[in-house]
Amino acid sequence: MLEKIHSPRDLDGMSYEQLDRLAGEIRKTLISTVSSNGGHLASNLGAVELTLALHRVFRMPTDKIIFDVGHQSYVHKIITGRYEQFPTLRSYGGLSGFPKRSESIYDCFETGHASTAISAALGMARARDYQNEDYDVIAVVGDGALTGGMCYEALNDAGNSKTKMIVILNDNEMSIAPNVGALSQYLTRLRISAGWQSAKQHVRHLNQIPLIGRPLYKVIHGTKKMVRSLIVKDNETGFFEALGFNYYGPINGHDIEEMEKAFRQARKGKGPCVIQVLTKKGYGYDKAEERPEAFHGTPPFYVETGYRIDKPASPSWGHIMADTLAEMSVKDNRIVAITAAMKLGTGLDHFAERFPDRLIDVGIAEEHAATMAAGLAAGGMRPYVAVYASFFQRCYDQMIHDVCMQNLPVVFLLDRSGIGGEDGQTHHGLFDFSMALPIPGMTILAPSSSGELISMLQWTLEQEGPCLIRYPKSVKPFSQSAPCSPFTAGKWQELKKGSDVILLAVGSMVPRALDTAEILEQKGISTEVLNCSSVKPVDEKYLASIPDTAQVYTLEEHMLTGGFGEYVSRYCADRGYVIPTGCFAVKGCYIPHGDHERLMQEAGLNAESLAKDIIRRRKGDISCE
Amino acid sequence: MLEKIHSPRDLDGMSYEQLDRLAGEIRKTLISTVSSNGGHLASNLGAVELTLALHRVFRMPTDKIIFDVGHQSYVHKIITGRYEQFPTLRSYGGLSGFPKRSESIYDCFETGHASTAISAALGMARARDYQNEDYDVIAVVGDGALTGGMCYEALNDAGNSKTKMIVILNDNEMSIAPNVGALSQYLTRLRISAGWQSAKQHVRHLNQIPLIGRPLYKVIHGTKKMVRSLIVKDNETGFFEALGFNYYGPINGHDIEEMEKAFRQARKGKGPCVIQVLTKKGYGYDKAEERPEAFHGTPPFYVETGYRIDKPASPSWGHIMADTLAEMSVKDNRIVAITAAMKLGTGLDHFAERFPDRLIDVGIAEEHAATMAAGLAAGGMRPYVAVYASFFQRCYDQMIHDVCMQNLPVVFLLDRSGIGGEDGQTHHGLFDFSMALPIPGMTILAPSSSGELISMLQWTLEQEGPCLIRYPKSVKPFSQSAPCSPFTAGKWQELKKGSDVILLAVGSMVPRALDTAEILEQKGISTEVLNCSSVKPVDEKYLASIPDTAQVYTLEEHMLTGGFGEYVSRYCADRGYVIPTGCFAVKGCYIPHGDHERLMQEAGLNAESLAKDIIRRRKGDISCE
Repeated sequence: MLEKIHSPRDLDGMSYEQLDRLAGEIRKTLISTVSSNGGHLASNLGAVELTLALHRVFRMPTDKIIFDVGHQSYVHKIITGRYEQFPTLRSYGGLSGFPKRSESIYDCFETGHASTAISAALGMARARDYQNEDYDVIAVVGDGALTGGMCYEALNDAGNSKTKMIVILNDNEMSIAPNVGALSQYLTRLRISAGWQSAKQHVRHLNQIPLIGRPLYKVIHGTKKMVRSLIVKDNETGFFEALGFNYYGPINGHDIEEMEKAFRQARKGKGPCVIQVLTKKGYGYDKAEERPEAFHGTPPFYVETGYRIDKPASPSWGHIMADTLAEMSVKDNRIVAITAAMKLGTGLDHFAERFPDRLIDVGIAEEHAATMAAGLAAGGMRPYVAVYASFFQRCYDQMIHDVCMQNLPVVFLLDRSGIGGEDGQTHHGLFDFSMALPIPGMTILAPSSSGELISMLQWTLEQEGPCLIRYPKSVKPFSQSAPCSPFTAGKWQELKKGSDVILLAVGSMVPRALDTAEILEQKGISTEVLNCSSVKPVDEKYLASIPDTAQVYTLEEHMLTGGFGEYVSRYCADRGYVIPTGCFAVKGCYIPHGDHERLMQEAGLNAESLAKDIIRRRKGDISCE
Repeated sequence: MLEKIHSPRDLDGMSYEQLDRLAGEIRKTLISTVSSNGGHLASNLGAVELTLALHRVFRMPTDKIIFDVGHQSYVHKIITGRYEQFPTLRSYGGLSGFPKRSESIYDCFETGHASTAISAALGMARARDYQNEDYDVIAVVGDGALTGGMCYEALNDAGNSKTKMIVILNDNEMSIAPNVGALSQYLTRLRISAGWQSAKQHVRHLNQIPLIGRPLYKVIHGTKKMVRSLIVKDNETGFFEALGFNYYGPINGHDIEEMEKAFRQARKGKGPCVIQVLTKKGYGYDKAEERPEAFHGTPPFYVETGYRIDKPASPSWGHIMADTLAEMSVKDNRIVAITAAMKLGTGLDHFAERFPDRLIDVGIAEEHAATMAAGLAAGGMRPYVAVYASFFQRCYDQMIHDVCMQNLPVVFLLDRSGIGGEDGQTHHGLFDFSMALPIPGMTILAPSSSGELISMLQWTLEQEGPCLIRYPKSVKPFSQSAPCSPFTAGKWQELKKGSDVILLAVGSMVPRALDTAEILEQKGISTEVLNCSSVKPVDEKYLASIPDTAQVYTLEEHMLTGGFGEYVSRYCADRGYVIPTGCFAVKGCYIPHGDHERLMQEAGLNAESLAKDIIRRRKGDISCE
């Protein structure tokens, strides 16, 4: 059936039985593509019926739908004319794993980071009203994203303005990990009060049946009949009512008919409303239902077993970090680790195994995480905030205002820095140096090996002020794996001696610099390679010693502007040292999604490109590519 | 009495009558110092009894008190041993207008930006519990700051963790301006439900009596008796209960005895609680009660009349901006202005007078403001987000993720950029270039004159993508005041021709560059001055034309690292153009509070210092100062 769905309007004439069959086909497509390409599976499996019901009731693209975070938009893509392209998901040049306005008129607003959709929807709804237009704006928000303060700011504004908009609370009782926060308990009380609990357990029981090889529609069809319609109205003094919203729910998010009724009702209403829709993450694929965290974002896997196809050869940066923190915690009980709903992603599960009480998961709330860490530090603790580099952007002001201005010993551990790969532009970590370098008192480090990371972490315990350590997603641990203690800030390690060209390489670029040096040496160019793991402070002594005869290049997986190279350039110019001839970095454009190595090539950051560029410049061609 | 208060413990033996007299003395001190130094008045007048009651019940500094925003901490300063220094408030080298850990052990956590205190308090409370210590942690938060999403993130985390902490909701029914947002209506309902309304109106009636020349304690003492004790418990399903907090209130925030009772009760309780305390902004000084917005942050004024001592000679940057936007709106109905609770401060009151429906005040919620603006732009509108440069830091991720990555035509108007003056380090706007320069597609402008600002604003309407325009607090409008239309991005204006030295000046540094040139010319150094109002894109044609014989300097009121000078330096190095000899900017440290000109001198950014430094470098001394 799916090949006949070219637009959501092709759903219009379908019976509920046909829709159930279609849902089964969509699930098969999701599992097939994600098992081969990797991607977000559990959240999409949970949102199949929800997406179908939304597209049946609302008239996209005239009506606007915004998926918060956006990784649950696969079903939306499949039924809005992108079914044939779906096998290209997340690959270079293929479909993005997130809504993209350039991909389709059905993608009206791009998302990637959590908790933005209600704000964006309110903006679009206001634009509609200003222009006297008539359409609906719908924000689909997970209960996890609702822990982000932006949602609350938007609810508060929308509830006050009485602007008509519909918030679908896609409540699967977890975001990426089981949800934290008081509000999630409140949502649970709403569920229980509506008598949902028993019905849901019944659904869960039915879902023990594995998906593959069985007619899926029967499973879904079977449960649907048993769940009674549950549209109730929240008490006048409830959370959403306090914020000026009408609340409806909870309703069964795997029952298309029930959802359609609720959506039609909401469509007729005035002002802003919230509809709580209960879904099950991973619904319809037993492996994902059992381990929804593992199938939140997953690498390629075997459908039959759920096992990953490529087993990681070595521990991740995050696990090295977490194991080291745990080791340090044996001797030092001031250590606390903090995550914003990313215990698994940051590797802190390893830490929590040994020190469960020393891990604080604050929900998707990076701002609060940073300032709460500042409070912990002011109270005498040693907080380590582990966060993806791109989400660190969320706590920029808190990093400056609450941590650095008070010179508190908070350590930010930035995972997924540099070019992230398949998740694309919203998930690359390319701005962290430019965020942190201008901040007085901040130490910035970038290990190139596990040993270095261990030494750095140990070193941070002795420091008085803030520190940032960034490392990439992929683990290609460079030579050492033993700690190279003690770490010294402001000291760069000479990995290879040379005289014509000097490569100042940061973090992930260190092995690439060595590869580049090898190519250059083959061409008779004597090349020196420095491991600049101490990004700030720089190694002034080394920079002062560089002879005029050498050509210096910096290498970093970061934007050129505001990065290490620019910083070193001005640093040298101000002191009369040799100014780098060139800075290798990402230059002036966003990096799309795709295989990491492919993206590095596009950015000119693979060894071959680097060597070629250096040779070109040595010939006197200084033109900027 | 005040000179005898050296620590909060000196309050212990006092009767309530004595405390009322003391409150009167404190109000006189507040009015006297702020009328001469400028500062935050209305919020401090409203918090006199509250601060006294807190210090009577809790045992600071063992117990920890964190003032959200911090501008209401004057009373706290006066009674924690800083009474004698109080006349130095906000002046260079004197007391800060915000809590400072370096000033006193009673200032346990620094604040300045809104909505951080609950996060910080939760961190400190957790540190206490980890270390098995026994003290109370209190966050004092205004109802305005409660519109910030961070508060909600912190409440959600605290309510879940059940950590003992006390949040004092200092509810004066407004933050800086009358409060917006649905939650403020909810708080009003709580007030009404507790029967507070009538009592409060009675208080308001009594306060019509002007303060000066009358025995204040009688006024307060008189009202106290009439307001009944109002400690009630919120309904189980209320907002704070949904977030896991116990709620008490509302209680009379000008009745010390009543508050003491509530605080003692809270002290004995377990888990987190919120106490809603009702205060009146400006309480006890009729001018401030009548116009609390004007006396929120005020320049020096005459106590008798409430009039400002120095009338602004020319319209502010904000008013020029707002008037221009209003003019543009006559012809273009796509224009919307957005403020985060800063209608007066940003000058947007001028816009609202003419287009009240086109101004959206979202509350203290910069994150939401930016993403909501992106939604408006995606819906076909032209949003202008006016925000102080230092608060712009709050929406860093939203600027990148929601505005720039989608290349939406949102214009950020950054007021108070550069060194802000008396408010000190948390309020300077010194990181905006480093935030925006690395972002692909972002145009960055800095007018040096009102005419330029007008031309730039007109220009933005023609653009497809995002733009940032920054201007300082003080208005020293440079030469032109008429629009110098049409504005051209990437084109710098040559203000003065010269051959030895070239000064590339940005925004507020343009008049200083001209002054510097005058000094240099007197020493026989031929100096060229460029107005680099287009920060990005730069004027490549001009940069390419600079002869090797010239010494180039950049001038900006921004951090050196990540700023315009560093950007231009690498830009030139990459293209083989002349690299600037020096970059004048703020170098590697936080700037304290004080008179703007004094701070500029300290940073070496006054004309005399600049000229001296250039002459020194021309003599071959390239050492970094």
